[in-house]
Parts: sequence; C-alpha cells; structure tokens
Amino acid sequence: MNINDVMKLVENEREAVEKNLIDNLDSDVEMVNKVAEYIFESGGKRLRPVFMILSALMCGYDGERTINLAGVVEYIHTATLLHDDVIDGAKYRRGKESANNVFGNDITVLCGDFLYSRAFMNLVKDGDSRAQMLLAVAARTMSEGEVFQLIKTADVKITMDDYLRIINSKTAVMFATCCEIGAILGEMPVEKQKALADFGKTLGIAFQMADDILDYLGDPEKTGKKPGTDLKEGKITLPIITLLANAAEEEKKRVRNIIVDERSSEENLNYILDLMNTYDVKAKSELVVDKYIQEAKANLNLFEKSKYRDALDFLADYMVARDR
Amino acid sequence: MNINDVMKLVENEREAVEKNLIDNLDSDVEMVNKVAEYIFESGGKRLRPVFMILSALMCGYDGERTINLAGVVEYIHTATLLHDDVIDGAKYRRGKESANNVFGNDITVLCGDFLYSRAFMNLVKDGDSRAQMLLAVAARTMSEGEVFQLIKTADVKITMDDYLRIINSKTAVMFATCCEIGAILGEMPVEKQKALADFGKTLGIAFQMADDILDYLGDPEKTGKKPGTDLKEGKITLPIITLLANAAEEEKKRVRNIIVDERSSEENLNYILDLMNTYDVKAKSELVVDKYIQEAKANLNLFEKSKYRDALDFLADYMVARDR
Repeated sequence: MNINDVMKLVENEREAVEKNLIDNLDSDVEMVNKVAEYIFESGGKRLRPVFMILSALMCGYDGERTINLAGVVEYIHTATLLHDDVIDGAKYRRGKESANNVFGNDITVLCGDFLYSRAFMNLVKDGDSRAQMLLAVAARTMSEGEVFQLIKTADVKITMDDYLRIINSKTAVMFATCCEIGAILGEMPVEKQKALADFGKTLGIAFQMADDILDYLGDPEKTGKKPGTDLKEGKITLPIITLLANAAEEEKKRVRNIIVDERSSEENLNYILDLMNTYDVKAKSELVVDKYIQEAKANLNLFEKSKYRDALDFLADYMVARDR
Repeated sequence: MNINDVMKLVENEREAVEKNLIDNLDSDVEMVNKVAEYIFESGGKRLRPVFMILSALMCGYDGERTINLAGVVEYIHTATLLHDDVIDGAKYRRGKESANNVFGNDITVLCGDFLYSRAFMNLVKDGDSRAQMLLAVAARTMSEGEVFQLIKTADVKITMDDYLRIINSKTAVMFATCCEIGAILGEMPVEKQKALADFGKTLGIAFQMADDILDYLGDPEKTGKKPGTDLKEGKITLPIITLLANAAEEEKKRVRNIIVDERSSEENLNYILDLMNTYDVKAKSELVVDKYIQEAKANLNLFEKSKYRDALDFLADYMVARDR
C-alpha cells in the first residue's frame, strides 16, 4: 500500500468534500467567497477529512453525513489557520502568499469568523448532538491552546508537559474528533469510539512533533522553508526541549539566552543547529514520535482487518515520515 | 414606565445571565478567563439578552433555556466586539481600555474565537435546531456585514441600500434573532415568530442609526467621546448620507474629497459638522430613525397587552433616545 492507493480508496469522498467546501461559500458578499476560495484552491492535504472518511468507512458507514461533517472540520481548521497567520504575521501558506498578506489582517480575521459560523450552520444541519459537541469543544480547545502557546512564547522554563498540552490542544484534539466522529457515524460501541479517539489523539501529537522537528531539522531543499521559523517566533518545541535535556550546562545557558534575547540572529540559529547535530537531537526526537505512532496504531487492533484499517495504519506512519 | 421599571421587571433573569456569562468562563488556560472576565466585568447594557428575555416572557415562557441562550448571544456579540476592536485598532470600549489595548491583538483575536466556540457548546446543549440555526446564521451574517463595511470604507458612492445592508448585518440580524428566539421559546405560531423577528430587525436598524447619528452629532459632554470617529475610519453612515442628499453641489464635492483624501483633519471635521448643522442633518436623520421605531413597535400589536409588551414598547423608544 502506498499513499496513492490510500487516496484512490477515498477518491469519491475526497472529491465530494472539495465540492462541499466550495459550494458552501455562498456569501452575498463576494469578497468573503473570494478570500475563502483563494485558500481552498491553494490545496492542502485535507488530512482531517481523510481520517474522518476512513474512520467512518472502517466502522461501516458510507453515507452522506461524512462529507458534510468533514467539510465542517476543514472550515474550522481553515478558520484557525487564517487567525494564526494573522497572529504570526505569516507571509506564506501552502506555497502561496498568505491570505493576510494578500487581503489584509482585517478581512482575514473576519473571513475566519465567517468560516467558523458557516461550519456551525452545517453542523446544526447534521443534527447529531454528539458530533456537534465534539466539534464545538475541539474549536474551543484549539483557541485555548493557541493562547497557552502565546503565553509560553520564549519561556525557557517550558516543560515537556506544557509542550504536550500545547500540541494536544492545537492539533491532536481535532484529529481525535475526526476519528471519533467516524466511529459515531458507524454507530460503534463506546469502547471503539474511545479507541478511535485515542488513535487520532496520539497520531495528532506525533504529527505535530514531526512538524516541529522539520522546522529546525528538515532539509530546506525538500521543505522549501528556511529552518528555524519557530525559533524566531519563540516557539519552544520538541527539538529545543530535547536539546536542553542533553546539552552541557554552559551550552544550555547559551541556548536559553538566545531564546530569550537574541533569537533572530542567523549566527545563533546556526549555533543551535550545530548543537542539535552534536547531540543527535533529530534521531532522539524521532524516537519520541515513533513511540506515539506505535501507541496510536495499537488502537486499530480493536477493529477487524479491512482495507480501511490498513489505510489508517499506513497513513499514521506516512504522516510523520513526511519530509516536507 | 421608566428604564428602571423595565430593568426591575427582568432583574432575576438579568442576574442569572451575568452569572451564566462568568460561570462559563471555565478555561484551563487562566489568561482566557482573565481576558473574558475583563470584558464582562466592564459592564455593557446586555440589551440583546434583555430583548430575548422580555420576548420570551411576553410569549409565556419563563424557563431556564432563556438564560442559557441569552448567554450564547452575549458571547457571540462580545466575540464580534473583540474582533472589531482589533480591526479598528480601538483604544477604548465601555469607558475602559479595550482588550486589544491591554492584552494585545493576538490574544484578543483568540479570546474572541474562544467565546464563539464556547457559545456554540452552550447552543448544542440547548438542543433546539431552530434556535441553533438562527444564531449560527446571525454569526455568519455579522462577519459578512463587517467585511462588506470594510469594502465600502471611504466609498463615497455608497447608497442608502448599501448602508441599510451593513447595519442590518452587523446589528439588526442579532436583535431579530433574540426576539424571534423569545417567540420560539414561547412556542408561538409562525406569524408571531415573524412579527417578533421584524420587531427586532427594524428596532436594530433604528438603534444602529441612532448610534451613527451620535458619532457625528452627539453632545461630547454626554457621550464622553470626541465626535467624528466614524469619519476618521471612513465609515459612511446616515448623517453623511443625509448631508450628501441635501447639500449644494460644491459642498458635496468638498465633503466627498474630505472622505476620500483628508478625513483625519480637525478642520475638515468641523467643516462637515457645520454643514450638518446648516442642513439640519440631525433632525432629518432622527426622522428616519423614528420611522423605523414606529414600524418596529407596530409588530407588538399582534400580542396581547402585558407588562412585558409595555416594556418592549418602552425599550424600543428608549434605545434610540439615548444620548450616550
């Protein structure tokens, strides 16, 4: 099984979700549709919808509700991206100029709000209060997680627990929700709903960690990004935490000073990258990711073998093996 | 009947709403609660909750659901205020420093998102899909209205229809929703639901118009604000539209030039204020407001006389007679 096989397996559903995303951009205010179309047409992997679709199919549900709910998830996810890009002053997103860069912060914030509320309209239409509550809670948790991350900016006392809390809120909860909704759609018993929620959650944690590793230690030729964006923004993630757990006292001190006071210099970034190399931070961090992925995949054992289960199993590994 | 009588009539419900607003600030991230408490503790008239409560009582419903739904409305309203203040770079709100000014734009945007999603959690709890859809649509319409207003910034070709569309979206739809939900809670027939929706809508239009008149023509001693904020922000509202409909050709030309190119000078503001005085813009604008208020109140005739109907009738007049 490769990624093309997986995508082929849910091709119809993926196309239906794309159509749903565009069809629901029905604002009377043309600018709102324009901004939203700009974002949706720049692609994106639609990972969350794919996990919901595969989870539902594995649980025996192949009806229309998945498409609507997957669209809701992608709208909420996109709303958070729009607001995050405004907050970070991001210049690019998915290889194109970011919406805030093209349309301005004000319109971008409001289009995020439009997507939130449009998502909730479709969620009301679905009518299942369990799915509704899971998604409302996920949206709440994501906004809380972003605030917590902001508070912890350049805080060198951040613990692994703080970091886990941040990535659980900003990424893992939504993956958990997608997979759990798949189980709800398939009317699975609570035990299997919980197994799929745990699958999504641990997978989401691993996914965000892999992303955070790439930010420092990815190959710029493949990621297309200069390393160290997170350092510049004062986001302390797995590679820094791993480095601080391994470096000598004097080195730690300098790393902390860089994070607090001098994090935008190229020279300091290179010092940190060299240290990461010395202490084998990439391999050490990847071990942590691997632990979460194994934990995630164990949850699938509760389900009968099927091509959908295989696809979820494959995707879990694939998501953290990305090099871009 | 005076305003104190009205507020006394719904005192218990108002207190319950205040408690609801604070009790639901249950984030694990203390900063989120802190920002939200900062806003709710700075007061605000809670007009939307009061209209929902009075509508429900007039329609014979006095149960718990009103409190929860009124809290949802106030959360959504507050989320839009937070985002608007970020967009406008507002320095003050309700006589205190604005949240964006105290906590920064980034945290303020995210706390707005928190309030949106927290509102939807409580809306899911309510479980009535009609109320859910009305409020999701209201939230959508408000974000669209703000985008439309931004697009029309300093656009001197704006028509009365454009202006009505903006104030309908940003203000009237939510008042309509509050009153209509009151009728739904009271299980009124569709005809009375519609009458209360129309009451709220026309009243909301009049309220926003009155607010827009005060921005240019209010007494600074009473409003506590320097006149002309809307002019500086390029927001073309009823007083300017009325002025442009009455001034001489040369004067119109100068007013238009000021709006497009020179709207931050004190001298130009005074020129416009003098012209408004010459052409009796305040009285003329107030006539328009009065027409909407009369239209709003006519909808109450469908309901039997009661102290709640009297209160709604009183409040409609009171809302536009404010001088601050």
